Amino acid sequence: MKDFGNFKNVLIIGLGLIGGSLALSLKNEGFKGKIYGFDLNKERIKKASELNAIDEGFDKFEDINWQDIDLVILATPVKTFENIAKQIKPFLNKDTIISDVGSVKGELVLKISKILQPNIFLGVHPIAGTEKEGIENAVIGLFKGARLIITPSENINQDILKRIEKFWKDLGSKVEIMEPYLHDFVFASVSHLPHAVAFALVDALINLSKETGIDLFKYPGGGFKDFTRIAASSPTVWKDIFLENKKDVLHTIDEFIKSMNKLKEAIEKEDEDKILNILSESREKRLSLEKS
Amino acid sequence: MKDFGNFKNVLIIGLGLIGGSLALSLKNEGFKGKIYGFDLNKERIKKASELNAIDEGFDKFEDINWQDIDLVILATPVKTFENIAKQIKPFLNKDTIISDVGSVKGELVLKISKILQPNIFLGVHPIAGTEKEGIENAVIGLFKGARLIITPSENINQDILKRIEKFWKDLGSKVEIMEPYLHDFVFASVSHLPHAVAFALVDALINLSKETGIDLFKYPGGGFKDFTRIAASSPTVWKDIFLENKKDVLHTIDEFIKSMNKLKEAIEKEDEDKILNILSESREKRLSLEKS
Repeated sequence: MKDFGNFKNVLIIGLGLIGGSLALSLKNEGFKGKIYGFDLNKERIKKASELNAIDEGFDKFEDINWQDIDLVILATPVKTFENIAKQIKPFLNKDTIISDVGSVKGELVLKISKILQPNIFLGVHPIAGTEKEGIENAVIGLFKGARLIITPSENINQDILKRIEKFWKDLGSKVEIMEPYLHDFVFASVSHLPHAVAFALVDALINLSKETGIDLFKYPGGGFKDFTRIAASSPTVWKDIFLENKKDVLHTIDEFIKSMNKLKEAIEKEDEDKILNILSESREKRLSLEKS
Repeated sequence: MKDFGNFKNVLIIGLGLIGGSLALSLKNEGFKGKIYGFDLNKERIKKASELNAIDEGFDKFEDINWQDIDLVILATPVKTFENIAKQIKPFLNKDTIISDVGSVKGELVLKISKILQPNIFLGVHPIAGTEKEGIENAVIGLFKGARLIITPSENINQDILKRIEKFWKDLGSKVEIMEPYLHDFVFASVSHLPHAVAFALVDALINLSKETGIDLFKYPGGGFKDFTRIAASSPTVWKDIFLENKKDVLHTIDEFIKSMNKLKEAIEKEDEDKILNILSESREKRLSLEKS
């Protein structure tokens, strides 16, 4: 039975693409409780009300009826979490659970947990989103069929973990559990690094165009367009992710530059075996993903 | 009227994905002449005959009735062009035109033209293909709607240029004309560089997995899978492209490594403005492609 982990009413802080999609999806999947929305931007609150995504919207924490809320979800850029946690702490009911939908966990989960205790914070990362921004691009069912990682700290209350799991499963997400630090390394590698690479690739083409006076963006064939779709992702969101997950991101960028230099040197030396070796190993790995 | 540039019979050298798709597409679009196929691999000739892609297949140049052929198309890896040009030269009819479907032009066009003169060589690069290999993956209509670049050398016979243009237009390709050296720089930037980057990215993830003992390929979410689709492309084909277009490829790789280091340093220094600047410029450029 769909009970969304038995939460009564939920407050979503941040009515952007993810927050807005969450509100709309909850309504659409039959969540019975009230959905409150918070955003500093009044236009977004208006838009969320018009879309019937929220029952009530606020732009000041003191205006909210906190007694009524047993689940708070942070859906703002991860960089704002610490500040928001400090601001809402005085208002929280003792049983209210705080969660999020951010892409960075690790250290951040520990930090936010510490600020909010004795209230419990449970990190959640839905692998969902588009390269668009804002509630006007919110998608009903964005989390349906999507993978979602919950990153409990060591001594988490198992009952609460189960409730948050149920909340997202009832929205159709495929839930996995992962240790917060492992999460950050894995996503630095498979998501943050590819984004950094895509941004740098477009940057290189801008510079090559300037340098030669040839507008390379007139020739989007040959794989380039697909390849850099993710370079259209939100600059603010990604700046924050790169900085919040700085250690792991730099580690993976270094490893990538090593690989890039290895290939470059093999081309320079016309070392056919080495080039073939790099390309074949990559191809094999990539093809093994198709099967999974 | 479809006359495929008024060529009587065509010889396709190399019955791989592109050569096979060309043969099948010619048949399908109603090319009236004979289609001869050459390949060193007898299995491929057999497969091409079974698919009814060719009228006759050869694995020795001396067995071919060269009098019958007025268009030869090289569809082998670009690295083999020089050698093949030398081998077929003694057999060629004086009016036979030689063309190709390779991804590298520039210097190579001049070199092949010189070997084959007084016969005329006209370079052609169809922006089509899949990451699959072999005639068994050939696609009828692969060139339909696809862009195709013809790279004539300076003093090309305009009549022959028009005939080759017609040949491909009758297959449904959208033909553009480009200077051979410009072609190589443009495609180094928008195609060869992205491929090098994709191969290096998968290589980095292989090394990060080894280094940490965490199999990162178990987590293909978060953009990585789309991003590296092209890393499954043929190692042999791409080794040859990287080496044949070495100068331009190295130039674009250097520019890319510069961009990657610029982003890396901005993250290291937590220079928010600089990160935002790189990301925003890339995003804008990428979005401008959507509109075109």
